[in-house]
Amino acid sequence: MRPVRALKYARARRARFVSELKEFMRFPSVSSEAERAGDIRRCASWLARHLQGIGMERAQVIPTRGNPLVFASWEHAKNRPTLLIYGHYDVVPAGPLAQWRIPPFTPTVEGANLYGRGACDDKGQLFCHVKAIESYLRTTRALPINVKCIFEGEEEIGSPQLLKFVARNQRALRADAAVISDTRMLAPDKPAISYSQRGGLRAELEVRGPQEELHSGTYGGAVLNPVQAVCEIIARLHDERGRIKIPGFYDDVREFSESERAYMLRAGPSDEKILQDARVEHGWGEPDYTVYERTTIRPALTLNGIVGGHTGPGVKGIIPRRAVAKLSFRLVPDQDPERIGRLFREHIARITPPAVQSAVRTFSPVQPALVDRNHPAVREAAFAYQQGFGARPVFLRSGGSIPVVNAFREFLGIPTVLMGFGLPGDRIHAPNEKFYLPNFFRGIDASIWYLAATGSGSLLKRVHRGKQRQKVWTA
Amino acid sequence: MRPVRALKYARARRARFVSELKEFMRFPSVSSEAERAGDIRRCASWLARHLQGIGMERAQVIPTRGNPLVFASWEHAKNRPTLLIYGHYDVVPAGPLAQWRIPPFTPTVEGANLYGRGACDDKGQLFCHVKAIESYLRTTRALPINVKCIFEGEEEIGSPQLLKFVARNQRALRADAAVISDTRMLAPDKPAISYSQRGGLRAELEVRGPQEELHSGTYGGAVLNPVQAVCEIIARLHDERGRIKIPGFYDDVREFSESERAYMLRAGPSDEKILQDARVEHGWGEPDYTVYERTTIRPALTLNGIVGGHTGPGVKGIIPRRAVAKLSFRLVPDQDPERIGRLFREHIARITPPAVQSAVRTFSPVQPALVDRNHPAVREAAFAYQQGFGARPVFLRSGGSIPVVNAFREFLGIPTVLMGFGLPGDRIHAPNEKFYLPNFFRGIDASIWYLAATGSGSLLKRVHRGKQRQKVWTA
Repeated sequence: MRPVRALKYARARRARFVSELKEFMRFPSVSSEAERAGDIRRCASWLARHLQGIGMERAQVIPTRGNPLVFASWEHAKNRPTLLIYGHYDVVPAGPLAQWRIPPFTPTVEGANLYGRGACDDKGQLFCHVKAIESYLRTTRALPINVKCIFEGEEEIGSPQLLKFVARNQRALRADAAVISDTRMLAPDKPAISYSQRGGLRAELEVRGPQEELHSGTYGGAVLNPVQAVCEIIARLHDERGRIKIPGFYDDVREFSESERAYMLRAGPSDEKILQDARVEHGWGEPDYTVYERTTIRPALTLNGIVGGHTGPGVKGIIPRRAVAKLSFRLVPDQDPERIGRLFREHIARITPPAVQSAVRTFSPVQPALVDRNHPAVREAAFAYQQGFGARPVFLRSGGSIPVVNAFREFLGIPTVLMGFGLPGDRIHAPNEKFYLPNFFRGIDASIWYLAATGSGSLLKRVHRGKQRQKVWTA
Repeated sequence: MRPVRALKYARARRARFVSELKEFMRFPSVSSEAERAGDIRRCASWLARHLQGIGMERAQVIPTRGNPLVFASWEHAKNRPTLLIYGHYDVVPAGPLAQWRIPPFTPTVEGANLYGRGACDDKGQLFCHVKAIESYLRTTRALPINVKCIFEGEEEIGSPQLLKFVARNQRALRADAAVISDTRMLAPDKPAISYSQRGGLRAELEVRGPQEELHSGTYGGAVLNPVQAVCEIIARLHDERGRIKIPGFYDDVREFSESERAYMLRAGPSDEKILQDARVEHGWGEPDYTVYERTTIRPALTLNGIVGGHTGPGVKGIIPRRAVAKLSFRLVPDQDPERIGRLFREHIARITPPAVQSAVRTFSPVQPALVDRNHPAVREAAFAYQQGFGARPVFLRSGGSIPVVNAFREFLGIPTVLMGFGLPGDRIHAPNEKFYLPNFFRGIDASIWYLAATGSGSLLKRVHRGKQRQKVWTA
């Protein structure tokens, strides 16, 4: 069962693989910027053509009301299970540009790293699977398991189209397990499988003051300033120890067992390590929890941005009309994003001073997700890591949110294996994002091993049971 | 002494005067935007040429290290006093553009109002004096008083060059009184002379967090967010009643006598009137003071703008690197801007959470200013208003800051008469700024009367004493 020919093929073609990944990264496929719609489309077409070129079938760009999906499949492994490979070809905006050492969409290798927006999140990691598939199809002309690839272009804006697509196309996407590489390892020799993801909810808080900008000399001291008001509202969202002050916010937060927390302490990164990776001197947050716990089993409310009044160069003596803050919640079991949204809106309404008006918009709700560590698809992933990276993975909780994990569970009834190849220092969402090239190559190897193992191992035994069960959800 | 010919000349030429004012307003002479330097220069040249065209002498653009000054004089009124007329040809930025009903630099008459940036602040008001001078010089070929005009292009950024220029050119600017039209009346038939101005100080507060933007999923809950921190700092600048919480801030605030406050209550605008002018429903601020008092004899701290993190469209799940707030203090007797700046810096350093860094920059300090209501130059202004507007002015305090008033007092030893022609609804510094045209015409009449009255009235008697005294300051 050792995938000798595929591994050999991949190892001999690393230079080409890197150059293809660079081609992929050159598309500024920023999903949150409307003016990038053309780049998004071109990136999706490129990816579909690429999948066709490596021997995948039914490769196609699927238009949606938002950014297109890219689908491809290979289904000739009779009586074998089906693996659904998910990834996203969209990226977050590159700014602030001044802090990039290279132009963000001009991928550049420096030492052992490939720099550029999307290098790690998620183009590079997605590409590990694409190149693993190629290595099989170009050598043995077959895959050891049926594969469906679904790559989306809206992950960074909450996957609105994909979630609907999964709900409506349960038959077409039917599979036995899903794998996503969009998470991080602990270190180059310490692979990790994420078995939990925080949920999320985005919010925009707008505070409106005077109908028009007012002169701060004429009215300063007698009219409440919406910038001041938004600050005072935001200051009332956390207490001085870092706990969120929205009444009822912690009601449904699950308290994890001592043994679970002990495992996390043993397997997870230390406070020092996490802060060092973030290049931050001082930690912050809820007392009585480690930094790892604060970012995984505890919820968070983060200000992503704020703007109001005069922000250009120089001074302008005004009382602004309005101020807007952008926030994101990270939620944990058993918090429900809809309920949190309601509590937030109620709290804001309660604490808004009468001299201004506030409005809250919430969007992109994502349920927290948990994967059974003993599922065969997870166990095979541990084996594949061992083969690809030479080390057993630890099981980690992750602080981020991958909305599709819930959709796969809810609509396809399958678990998602989060088999990440990123590193803590890869600076995803930040300037100078990078992918550590040895992880790109080992990620390809691990993906080859994963295809081999899931095609022949214990997942096989689950397949029929899985299919039985599936009927319930596709009804 | 009735200036019949000048008044008649002015009244017959109103349409041309408006069209010239529109020409003046078409220059986007925004002093706080570096890319407007060319427009500033062109505006200054236009103004100097215009002064020459109406018969003023020595009309010239005076280059400085910042925006140029415009000077002109007429000094053939032997043994008569000298009036220094100040105004500013620069304007604040036009934004937010979406709220303008017309393009801000395309002046447009609608009904009785002339709309456009600078219509009231200060091009229109400045132009009243220019047209009054023209009306004299084009009819009697002489002015009843010696006149020096000094018009600057940096008022909206704190007059840095003008203040130095006044300090260094005390002889050239020697005069007996100064007049500025850059303030407001109470209503079209209620002229007002401002006898006090608040001082000011601008500040920029920067809060820095992580060295690079961090993913809010990965780190949210464990790293203090600079946007959150700046909000929490700003929330600690006012108490819940609207008083400023900087220790020592109120130490030097003068308590005014009951009789002064009673005069203010009688002569000044009501709370309702001020809030109605601002189109604001709810007042706010220090209890135990009227809205008029809060904006004139009480200091204020106003947030002019804030920006940090992701402010573009869509969402970006980040912990930002930094946030910046722009603030302005309005100060009253006997507060000292330098001391307030020091107290502010100390307070910010004290309340900045250890997990972030803060930095404060202060600039544009302006002393509060007070003018003797019984000075002859002020009394003649009251007479001129009576003639031009048919009503005696009330004496008002003003909430804004005109830095040059202090410089004239300190370096030239002369009082400044604040003889405003603006109206409360003129929306200076805001979209749809306007000038009420009847006030433009009456302002020209009042200025003609003021030239007549100061050239022949009680100011004359003060001249020699003034000149005697002046030697002390020019030494």
